[in-house]
Amino acid sequence: MSDARQYFQLPSPFAMKRGGALHGAHVAYETWGRLNEARDNAVLILTGLSPSAHAASNDTDPTPGWWEGMLGPGKAIDSSRWFVICVNSLGSDKGSTCPASINPATGEPYRLSFPDLSLEDVAHAAHAMVASLGIDTLACLIGCSMGGMSALAYMLLHPGSVRTHISVDTAPQAQPFAIAIRSLQREAIRLDPHWNDGQYDAAQYPDIGMSIARKLGVITYRSAMEWNGRFARIRLDPEQREDQPFGFEFQVESYLEGHAQRFVRTFDPNSYLYLSRASDWFDISEYGNGHVQEGLKHIHIEQALVIGVSTDILFPLEQQEQIAEGLEAAGAKVEFVALDSPQGHDAFLVDIDNYSRAIGGFLSRL
Amino acid sequence: MSDARQYFQLPSPFAMKRGGALHGAHVAYETWGRLNEARDNAVLILTGLSPSAHAASNDTDPTPGWWEGMLGPGKAIDSSRWFVICVNSLGSDKGSTCPASINPATGEPYRLSFPDLSLEDVAHAAHAMVASLGIDTLACLIGCSMGGMSALAYMLLHPGSVRTHISVDTAPQAQPFAIAIRSLQREAIRLDPHWNDGQYDAAQYPDIGMSIARKLGVITYRSAMEWNGRFARIRLDPEQREDQPFGFEFQVESYLEGHAQRFVRTFDPNSYLYLSRASDWFDISEYGNGHVQEGLKHIHIEQALVIGVSTDILFPLEQQEQIAEGLEAAGAKVEFVALDSPQGHDAFLVDIDNYSRAIGGFLSRL
Repeated sequence: MSDARQYFQLPSPFAMKRGGALHGAHVAYETWGRLNEARDNAVLILTGLSPSAHAASNDTDPTPGWWEGMLGPGKAIDSSRWFVICVNSLGSDKGSTCPASINPATGEPYRLSFPDLSLEDVAHAAHAMVASLGIDTLACLIGCSMGGMSALAYMLLHPGSVRTHISVDTAPQAQPFAIAIRSLQREAIRLDPHWNDGQYDAAQYPDIGMSIARKLGVITYRSAMEWNGRFARIRLDPEQREDQPFGFEFQVESYLEGHAQRFVRTFDPNSYLYLSRASDWFDISEYGNGHVQEGLKHIHIEQALVIGVSTDILFPLEQQEQIAEGLEAAGAKVEFVALDSPQGHDAFLVDIDNYSRAIGGFLSRL
Repeated sequence: MSDARQYFQLPSPFAMKRGGALHGAHVAYETWGRLNEARDNAVLILTGLSPSAHAASNDTDPTPGWWEGMLGPGKAIDSSRWFVICVNSLGSDKGSTCPASINPATGEPYRLSFPDLSLEDVAHAAHAMVASLGIDTLACLIGCSMGGMSALAYMLLHPGSVRTHISVDTAPQAQPFAIAIRSLQREAIRLDPHWNDGQYDAAQYPDIGMSIARKLGVITYRSAMEWNGRFARIRLDPEQREDQPFGFEFQVESYLEGHAQRFVRTFDPNSYLYLSRASDWFDISEYGNGHVQEGLKHIHIEQALVIGVSTDILFPLEQQEQIAEGLEAAGAKVEFVALDSPQGHDAFLVDIDNYSRAIGGFLSRL
């Protein structure tokens, strides 16, 4: 098994939950470690909205991954013991088929002709990829943020495919505050004249909409508490300030601008819209007659670790408590870890010490 | 004393804190009740960023005001006992001189030639208006949200002008989370091509930028908790949905759109930018060698009531605690009321029962 980015061709046609189908579609994934003979040491990571499958450095791509501190030999997700797979979500432009991909039927990019995307589709695609490796049952399924919702769909739709689960900073359904934030992010993109109903190109690109969407994301991914310590009211040096009316003056403004500039041209706007809406749509209660707990009862696994952060305003701690209670009621042995990391929703990417302790501890006891 | 909206001509030139001066400027205000002979029953209300001086209905304008439930005969701010004044902030387009006003020197609107506006200027203008009514000392100065910061400036810059103070959902300085939100609101307006460096008109108007700014405001003025109960995941009826890609689907999205539509053309975008930036700039620690508590020590009043809400993410409760501690350390008798209203920062406009009890109780004991 090589460590390079690999591609798995999905069955064609690949039917989508809300109608339509993809032909000749694929998902990108990367792996770390070796699958054992019993094929029972596989760990799958499902990601948040924007990360790629490159969760950590490996032989063919030595650049640090988005969870570099967490994954590797001897780390919390120990690739000397586990065969770790990270899959890029279907619909994401980080290697998987997405709205920016060429539609084989037309030879043109799908753009808005891409079928409606749901996290159930993301889960089905990931499951098919895992099955293609000869893995019937994952030792552990890890889902972070949006990936945590995809993970719930994965376990619910594929009974018996997962032994244990680690749920990180996620939710069993989108609440109205999160919907409002994501709706406004989408609207900033949609209202940018350069979005042009999805018909943008590099010359006419919705930079402004994407920048506003990203900044709003970063604001809600972090926490006020962290920023009080980090930025306070520190001003930019005069030479760093923008020479325009109402230009940036405080360090926190420049920090947001840096985040936006790194994101705007590196994530396809249409893909962003599709994945963002999929996050709003996801609702485990649809599988439980309108009740979250009833929906979670359909998930049968042996053990789970559920982690949340008190400073997360996008996926508040009560939602992780719901997941923990539901999985326990369904028969799993559940550990619930409530952290006080100051970094908000993004804590799982930053507070590696505390997340390592929880995740590494759980995995080492399996 | 009539109850109509009135205008007070500011001394001319009216020097601004950060440089420049206004000529022939004025502020709008309204009053309720009667000033007694001793001129010691006056209560002044300083408002948040967008409200007008029309805090409640009166003889000449029977339409409900923005604090209708709080102000009037027999209400918490009892106009049968107090002579109540509400002033429109300098720089606001609700009747006071603002960036949309005609610059007498040119005969054209100021737009971005309006001098830099600070909340200290807002406070000076309000104080001059009060003094013009023959009132040396206010019985009580009430400041809500941004108006609470203006009130701190008023008391600090005009010693002896205020006996007691009611501080409502405000802060002694802008923290980076609030700066980030307001910066992004300003950026949404600035990046709208129709803003055109402030040179918009009714035909080419920054509707999109104003709409995004307002929605972001409403999201941060309310709370996730309130919306869970109010909107949950309720969908719009099919006929209410927008017929466009990624159009609104959830009630919370339609709620935000309604707020935006009522705001976009009723508040001058340049005035919004000036007042928003003034909120970021305000910092009582500038008067205390960089320390909030040192700054507050310069405020000498007899009594204060400080109210905050645990669900406020824009002006968190810790900031009201700072104000309460600082005013007490400076010698005032302080009552601190921490409410658990679910409505977030806007609770003072919605949870009239709890705010009435606190404010009415405090005023009745004076």
